Amino acid sequence: MTKKLVFGHKNPDTDTICSAIVYAELKHKLGEDVEAVRLGEVNSETQYALDYFNVDAPRQVQTVSNEVEQVILVDHNERQQSAEDIDDVQVTEVIDHHRIANFETNGPLYYRAEPVGCTATILTKMFKEKGQDISKSTAGLLLSSIISDSLLFKSPTCTDEDVEIAKELEAIAQVEAEVYGLDMLKAGADISDSTAEELLSLDAKEFSMGDSKVEIAQVNTVDTEEVLQRKAELTKAIHETVSSKSLDLFVFVITDILTNDSTVIAIGDQSNAVNQAFGVELTDNQAVLNGVVSRKKQIVPPLNEQLG
Amino acid sequence: MTKKLVFGHKNPDTDTICSAIVYAELKHKLGEDVEAVRLGEVNSETQYALDYFNVDAPRQVQTVSNEVEQVILVDHNERQQSAEDIDDVQVTEVIDHHRIANFETNGPLYYRAEPVGCTATILTKMFKEKGQDISKSTAGLLLSSIISDSLLFKSPTCTDEDVEIAKELEAIAQVEAEVYGLDMLKAGADISDSTAEELLSLDAKEFSMGDSKVEIAQVNTVDTEEVLQRKAELTKAIHETVSSKSLDLFVFVITDILTNDSTVIAIGDQSNAVNQAFGVELTDNQAVLNGVVSRKKQIVPPLNEQLG
Repeated sequence: MTKKLVFGHKNPDTDTICSAIVYAELKHKLGEDVEAVRLGEVNSETQYALDYFNVDAPRQVQTVSNEVEQVILVDHNERQQSAEDIDDVQVTEVIDHHRIANFETNGPLYYRAEPVGCTATILTKMFKEKGQDISKSTAGLLLSSIISDSLLFKSPTCTDEDVEIAKELEAIAQVEAEVYGLDMLKAGADISDSTAEELLSLDAKEFSMGDSKVEIAQVNTVDTEEVLQRKAELTKAIHETVSSKSLDLFVFVITDILTNDSTVIAIGDQSNAVNQAFGVELTDNQAVLNGVVSRKKQIVPPLNEQLG
Repeated sequence: MTKKLVFGHKNPDTDTICSAIVYAELKHKLGEDVEAVRLGEVNSETQYALDYFNVDAPRQVQTVSNEVEQVILVDHNERQQSAEDIDDVQVTEVIDHHRIANFETNGPLYYRAEPVGCTATILTKMFKEKGQDISKSTAGLLLSSIISDSLLFKSPTCTDEDVEIAKELEAIAQVEAEVYGLDMLKAGADISDSTAEELLSLDAKEFSMGDSKVEIAQVNTVDTEEVLQRKAELTKAIHETVSSKSLDLFVFVITDILTNDSTVIAIGDQSNAVNQAFGVELTDNQAVLNGVVSRKKQIVPPLNEQLG
């Protein structure tokens, strides 16, 4: 059987890295030749999870068509979030929990998307459906993904199914989700060593909304003020990104994982869409979005509504 | 819970009609308010299946957004094959076995595509996964869909999984697939009442291949000669279609469901592509393609190769 690569999105987060590792493992168990790779640096939250459960990060690649003809996508489908040469390979499978956009195939494929909080939740179900045991470290990576994507079950993207499956995984991984999870999130929220450019690219995704090119970057913190002290530096870097990528809008979302509110810095010709989408008034490019923690569920849809 | 409509593609075939009926039934069993509807006339093959298993056709609709806010798609995803106001409603689920193209959502959804021969195959698995019994008439509709899409298991689109599931359904539906299936296909192949224009539009799909605009229409028959007796009339209608739609090529595929060969009538500036794609020589616009029954797998790819 021909070898395939499996990978998540650019600017990988914990769900993208762990889902690639875990799905490659499931494929191995089913006798297929699949290797997990990643399209970017491992962030400090993900590294905490990998270290805790003693699992190596996947190999990093820039392109995939030089290695394989077929690939599997996890945790994304939109072309601009994928490998830069994604059009040169055949996508045979997608396992995802996001909207479908900017995705097209020449032939039929296996596509499984569910409106749950995390790709790892779907993968856990697939292990069970295929009758495969989940090891302690695999359960740990899956649980870490759910905690990460759901901000410890606080995000509105988190479903009952995510919570139930996290409980099962907690038992196998032999950790307390609330304790382990907060430590993991804090490891990711430690941004003291990061440059402004790094903060902006840590978890950034680009979207096509109507005719507008929009980038939305998010950072978790336990101290919003600490991030805002660097606003001048951040604003300068955002302006540069808007210019170099010809963006119509850049939204930087600073999410407080203790209060579950977000502060946004929005820059670009379409920044007024933020006011309209969230019923706020940007002051000095900045506004607070109370109770907003989820880019996918609380930021992309209203912005898309304005710009689409 | 809000009511949803479930429907398949325009120019409905047996899989599209039956999958909508059956998925609505599964949703009812799971406590959801879902009604099956259709976007066009029931063809004579499908009517045979509905009559045989004593099931009513779904209600026909032109638009959906005047009735509901949310819909479920079966057996298709491409926008141009769906309800004309599909952009005005939210697609919450898709169950399909085709390529993904021209499809986009604002938010996450449940999407299940598998590279099998028929949507009904996936729906049968879903009944089993949800622990729901399949009634005799439901099994009959599901089996009819598999027989229709696979031309009685002869099409190269038919997978081992389709065949296995058809066997299970055969037992529940209490029919012999080979006997019932041939009768059903023959009912669909009875074209004596159809005008030339109706024959050309019965199962027609348009494709972009390179710079060429290509339409491929297919009709099943048990008597190719009967169709070819109307060649003058058909040729005239094809010329009119080529002219009115500015097509570069129109291929009319007459598939004999007993011999599993097809005779094509090809007209247009690019008709030479048919000679090259299939290694034949069109004589009076006509050629025989031995062993060719599947537009998706045996006609589109080689033509696309020539024109793309």
